[in-house]
Amino acid sequence: MDFLDFEKKVDTTDIAYVIDGFNKGTIKDGDKVTLKGTIHRIKEMSGFAFVNIRTSRMVFQCVWEDGKSNITAEGFKDFSCEECVIIDGTIIAEERSRLGFDVRIDDMKRISGRAAVLPIEISNDRKIDKLNLNTLLDNRVIALRNPKIRAIMRVCDGVMYSFREFLRQEGFTEFVPPKMVESGAEGGADMFEVDYFGKKAYLNQSPQMYKQIMVGVFQKAYTVGPVFRAEKFSTNRHINEFQGLDLEMGFIDSFEDLMDLEARMFVFMFKTLNEQYSAELEMFLGRGNRLPELTKFPKIKFMDAKKLFADAHPGEVGIKALNEPDFAPEEEKWLGEYFLKEHNCPIVFVTHYPSVKRPFYAMDDPENKNFTLSYDMLLNGLEVTTGGQRIHDYEMQVAKMKSRGMNVDDFEDYLTMHKYGMPPHGGMGLGLERIVQNLLGLDNIKKATAFPRDRDRLRP
Amino acid sequence: MDFLDFEKKVDTTDIAYVIDGFNKGTIKDGDKVTLKGTIHRIKEMSGFAFVNIRTSRMVFQCVWEDGKSNITAEGFKDFSCEECVIIDGTIIAEERSRLGFDVRIDDMKRISGRAAVLPIEISNDRKIDKLNLNTLLDNRVIALRNPKIRAIMRVCDGVMYSFREFLRQEGFTEFVPPKMVESGAEGGADMFEVDYFGKKAYLNQSPQMYKQIMVGVFQKAYTVGPVFRAEKFSTNRHINEFQGLDLEMGFIDSFEDLMDLEARMFVFMFKTLNEQYSAELEMFLGRGNRLPELTKFPKIKFMDAKKLFADAHPGEVGIKALNEPDFAPEEEKWLGEYFLKEHNCPIVFVTHYPSVKRPFYAMDDPENKNFTLSYDMLLNGLEVTTGGQRIHDYEMQVAKMKSRGMNVDDFEDYLTMHKYGMPPHGGMGLGLERIVQNLLGLDNIKKATAFPRDRDRLRP
Repeated sequence: MDFLDFEKKVDTTDIAYVIDGFNKGTIKDGDKVTLKGTIHRIKEMSGFAFVNIRTSRMVFQCVWEDGKSNITAEGFKDFSCEECVIIDGTIIAEERSRLGFDVRIDDMKRISGRAAVLPIEISNDRKIDKLNLNTLLDNRVIALRNPKIRAIMRVCDGVMYSFREFLRQEGFTEFVPPKMVESGAEGGADMFEVDYFGKKAYLNQSPQMYKQIMVGVFQKAYTVGPVFRAEKFSTNRHINEFQGLDLEMGFIDSFEDLMDLEARMFVFMFKTLNEQYSAELEMFLGRGNRLPELTKFPKIKFMDAKKLFADAHPGEVGIKALNEPDFAPEEEKWLGEYFLKEHNCPIVFVTHYPSVKRPFYAMDDPENKNFTLSYDMLLNGLEVTTGGQRIHDYEMQVAKMKSRGMNVDDFEDYLTMHKYGMPPHGGMGLGLERIVQNLLGLDNIKKATAFPRDRDRLRP
Repeated sequence: MDFLDFEKKVDTTDIAYVIDGFNKGTIKDGDKVTLKGTIHRIKEMSGFAFVNIRTSRMVFQCVWEDGKSNITAEGFKDFSCEECVIIDGTIIAEERSRLGFDVRIDDMKRISGRAAVLPIEISNDRKIDKLNLNTLLDNRVIALRNPKIRAIMRVCDGVMYSFREFLRQEGFTEFVPPKMVESGAEGGADMFEVDYFGKKAYLNQSPQMYKQIMVGVFQKAYTVGPVFRAEKFSTNRHINEFQGLDLEMGFIDSFEDLMDLEARMFVFMFKTLNEQYSAELEMFLGRGNRLPELTKFPKIKFMDAKKLFADAHPGEVGIKALNEPDFAPEEEKWLGEYFLKEHNCPIVFVTHYPSVKRPFYAMDDPENKNFTLSYDMLLNGLEVTTGGQRIHDYEMQVAKMKSRGMNVDDFEDYLTMHKYGMPPHGGMGLGLERIVQNLLGLDNIKKATAFPRDRDRLRP
């Protein structure tokens, strides 16, 4: 029997420690350091080589020079990409280096090797960009090691963190809804069936019912987790398993409260990404670029947005589109461009969607029952959020279900909360991958998730 | 077109605002306030009543007195539990009140009502405690509103927050593994089958493969999400869908690094819960009580723990148990009691579990191949974590699979990472519900999850 020595130790073999020391002046030109990492790329010249070492957040440059190292030219040839190494090195101040220094390799030892030649060259962004999506996804296990691809995954981390941290500061409580359910909140279509000890169960296509239930418990509740949709779509915006960011809040005065909350959430998110994920953003937005500062959020009623588009497109699709209860993708795109041009806003809230296109739990606008107290949030001309006020009154909910020809008995669990009292409430759902695809300008949503699932893909 | 007014407004109808004002002296005896909440309980006497109002984090007391309120005795009878109300009130300083004041009801309006009488009395903890578990779970939608039951859910929030926040501070990145998979990382048993567009898929029973893959990407990675086990157990410690807290880290020097990390994580978690969730803890630990301060963590080898138990139980089950490659529940329980008594530690790390009881990816102890570089963490005599070092070398992993008679071809995705280089690494998995059950002393794990799933339960 013994006791753990659980004091946190400083990892002096981490490049972050060395960079910090170099900036503070405690580590200087000529100092000896020991560093760990993975060989990302070797660029060899005669008697000389740049060895790029990848660590958890960056790639830094080491220099090997024949005769100035314990590693001979012969020995150096033994090393290759994706091997994990420990390096004894010397700091060489170098103004042209991004860090202000290179590390000269005095000695290098293999911590672990690899057993095969890589099928794709993950250290070369240009070659990676030229590969087709299926090749990238088939080789996902190692493609994710490419710094630009992993930067996408890091931005996913940043968006999830921002969502949770903001809501926590706002007094929300996280909860965990079940994923295996007896039936779907929104009806049975598009659900994956599960063999549940010989009975039929389904994978939940939305935490809608559960987050509303939790409003009765915590008033303000959120959840982050997988959502399953057995949709047969094959577009660049659909995957069959995505990460849902869902919240619901009670005692709202109006559905405007939800948009206000979301606006502040996106201010927080953009700020967090700009401050803590700048290196990752730059790989997609360009050196020195950041997400825009969000200072105002336009809102426009659905029908007004329809008219705005129609007026700008006389004699075109406009008139026909006016009768449609939803936007066509080109309308959303145009709206995004319009508000960016006119108001310098990448975000616009479109409110009062037609009732026929909204779910049975949407609260109708008391001023015009054909429309709902709901909204979509468009980011750069693409819908990333649907939100709105829900019906909280039992009788009103039952009546709306009946008017839609729904069987009220199928929704016993759902209606239990209404039956025993619910405050006025509403909420919203965001798709992690949609946001990240959008922010980074990715041409396919599958690039915004580590291990995408589509009709044909269940691996890795 | 208009712009959102998204400045955050102070909610003056929140009891937290009033408490803060009362403590600062800006709100005083006799001041008028307006408050929103749900009627939790009404205790009526002749011409007088206590009206307990439930809000997101607490229950506070209002007082109605006939003749001192716009609400007549007749009108007051109309109100009942679980209705949402807005109250115009007067602050009455009251030393006997926990807050230092009561709120006298000058006027009260219903924001929303309820449509039926509650099937269980959720405002009475003693009655709730006497209900059997199935009744509580059948009525889960409203049972969760009981302050003691929702406190459990709040502690779940605290544990998830602590896990993520600690790891974020330690440089870990969150990732999202898929839940629908083609085959299981640990073999096909105990998996739920999904109809995936006519093909067979499974719900993942562990993010093991994915978190190891992400070590090759981020070096330090974690995920929080649902884990599915089609186990036919029916114990007080098993559910079929639980929330997994999983992490994996690379470039470790030894598996002791994992235990050190976990020890510091539990120090952080206990501290966070004690500081930010004290009201919730007190409902289970008793008024004024907190989780113990963690100052040391004993570790003991599996075989030494076996001997310790055997020596303390001469002639009993001890000798027989010595030959078993795992602990019996009574051994874990005794170890928990022993270390609490001898060292005042609720936590003990048991290391070097027998290879036969550990998965194929566990790294064997080079000093004795019959044991592994792995551990279990016991909290109050119950296992809440399994962790350990993994095999990172391709050839070594293939050899161990073959020695177990496994078909290496079935693990192509798994072995891809090893093939192309992996640092020495290890990780651990924790079950959210097990931890919460344990910390709060709950007699059944189903109480530690909002919507439990067992063999017979898929609702609500």
